[in-house]
Amino acid sequence: MGYRVDCLQYANWSEKIFRQMRDGNVDAVHVTIAYHENFRETILNVEAWNRWFQAFPDLIFQGFTGDDIRRARETGRTAIFFGFQNPSPIEDDIDLIEVWHRLGARFMQLTYNNQSLLATGCYEDDDAGLTRMGKQAVAEMNRVGMVIDMSHSADRSTLEAIDYSTRPIAITHANPKWWHDALRNKTNEVLCELTTSGGMLGFSMYPHHLNNGSKCKLDDFCQMIAKAADKYGVRALGLGSDLCQDQPDSIVTWMRNGRWTKDVDFGEGSASNAGFPEQPNWFHDNRSFARIEAALPDFGFNKEEVAGIMGDNWLRFYDRSFGPAKK
Amino acid sequence: MGYRVDCLQYANWSEKIFRQMRDGNVDAVHVTIAYHENFRETILNVEAWNRWFQAFPDLIFQGFTGDDIRRARETGRTAIFFGFQNPSPIEDDIDLIEVWHRLGARFMQLTYNNQSLLATGCYEDDDAGLTRMGKQAVAEMNRVGMVIDMSHSADRSTLEAIDYSTRPIAITHANPKWWHDALRNKTNEVLCELTTSGGMLGFSMYPHHLNNGSKCKLDDFCQMIAKAADKYGVRALGLGSDLCQDQPDSIVTWMRNGRWTKDVDFGEGSASNAGFPEQPNWFHDNRSFARIEAALPDFGFNKEEVAGIMGDNWLRFYDRSFGPAKK
Repeated sequence: MGYRVDCLQYANWSEKIFRQMRDGNVDAVHVTIAYHENFRETILNVEAWNRWFQAFPDLIFQGFTGDDIRRARETGRTAIFFGFQNPSPIEDDIDLIEVWHRLGARFMQLTYNNQSLLATGCYEDDDAGLTRMGKQAVAEMNRVGMVIDMSHSADRSTLEAIDYSTRPIAITHANPKWWHDALRNKTNEVLCELTTSGGMLGFSMYPHHLNNGSKCKLDDFCQMIAKAADKYGVRALGLGSDLCQDQPDSIVTWMRNGRWTKDVDFGEGSASNAGFPEQPNWFHDNRSFARIEAALPDFGFNKEEVAGIMGDNWLRFYDRSFGPAKK
Repeated sequence: MGYRVDCLQYANWSEKIFRQMRDGNVDAVHVTIAYHENFRETILNVEAWNRWFQAFPDLIFQGFTGDDIRRARETGRTAIFFGFQNPSPIEDDIDLIEVWHRLGARFMQLTYNNQSLLATGCYEDDDAGLTRMGKQAVAEMNRVGMVIDMSHSADRSTLEAIDYSTRPIAITHANPKWWHDALRNKTNEVLCELTTSGGMLGFSMYPHHLNNGSKCKLDDFCQMIAKAADKYGVRALGLGSDLCQDQPDSIVTWMRNGRWTKDVDFGEGSASNAGFPEQPNWFHDNRSFARIEAALPDFGFNKEEVAGIMGDNWLRFYDRSFGPAKK
């Protein structure tokens, strides 16, 4: 079997979930450790993870390199990789990128939904592209080996990040707009530029990103993957489930509102549908990956291609992305 | 030649000093990155070091393990190990010890001169020993592999740290009180307990710790080492010069006063002698270690013993101290 890698989760972590990772043979998960947290607050989230690593050493450990995914498989555990959905953990301090890389942060979104100090989020009316500090941050992330993630960013900012970055970037959790026209899904142009430059797309199973939302069929999802493989090449594709398992609705309110608004922002939801949406019936938790893996061969993928989508493509990307830039 | 390790410096760092480390064949230096700084302020000092590591990769790099001292020798560079002279960088947060260990902190004094949250400094009137958090911190430092350094701590706190710690501790920069009776030098009882428990003493060349201060003769210093070797065993001894090269006097004022007093504390100095004292004429900078190495054989040390004092003893201590505790 190939490796199983999920390139985005933000669950209400618990022993139950870590055991489900093991039951689901998930070798690696990229977990969000910051939405709007500043540097010191994000350190508190690292501390919480360190306590979980200490409490459940037979289930999970912190991953730093692609080889840690191989070590996870060999030792029957899941490697946990840290990432940010917002550059708030680096505040206004470019040197915090290297500090965070030392602490294990491997992905950083240049924006969440709003304008950040670095770039423009997909909910803003106007996108002025990478800021002055944004260009500095891209160069520094390239240098140390932290992946630029544009999952929540607006189009121009994303295209500029792809162009400005000397290393392939990622959209860890989103789907093509041509399949489901959502603000968070990506245009064909963005996905072409992303993948022709060596970047990776992780398909999201978050209902607001799915065709027909919570009612999306697994076949429809797999058909979309097959079409994306035709357009972008199968080796640029992986999964980034955006699984927010066991979270109370107060968390999606925090994700959307942080501390930035006096009004209430409903993001992809609405006043009448403000909470977390219901998961599709084929993807509930880390044990559900087997269903996707079992379905994919019916859509024209051979064994190696299925293994690539399920994790081997991310592993190859992790291998080349998390260390210093080659001179 | 054995390894050359200096287990305490706090210079006004510059390319000049890094080149002197190389000219002096110094393989490793434990550098202070915090006197009174809180967590975030100490991160700024890490960032400054990261910029030096990037600017002078042919001279210095960050050390994390004893093997980095061997790598320093092999590559003709100096390994820089981080340490704190005060527990202020962990604030009131026990989980910051593991975060700091990941960032490379390898020594932490439980106190500077005053009472801390963990223990009592040598300038307090009364010493109540390890605090409740102090005991937690010792256990956590033991777990992750951060060395307890009691250079500035009071006697009871030091004896309790030695007793409570399950791993050998260090006094990185101080001398015996029987040689020079200063508040910062250590009683015979403390040094016996330190060394019989596997701990290390680094001899200080800071004038206030020397017999006759700035006028101390090299022979007198070496004779003291010979006597200490008789009493404690040569393998427990190394150097911790406390070199504060090129620092303006405002820095010694900061070291003594931090933000804790409305009066002016002169520490080991006095109102009429408030600045940094003059270095002894045999120890000015990193090129001066050769003079000590050349002098020691006249005081009864064989080649292996000299190499031990100059750095091999610290290397052995680093090897066994900087990783997780063996189960």
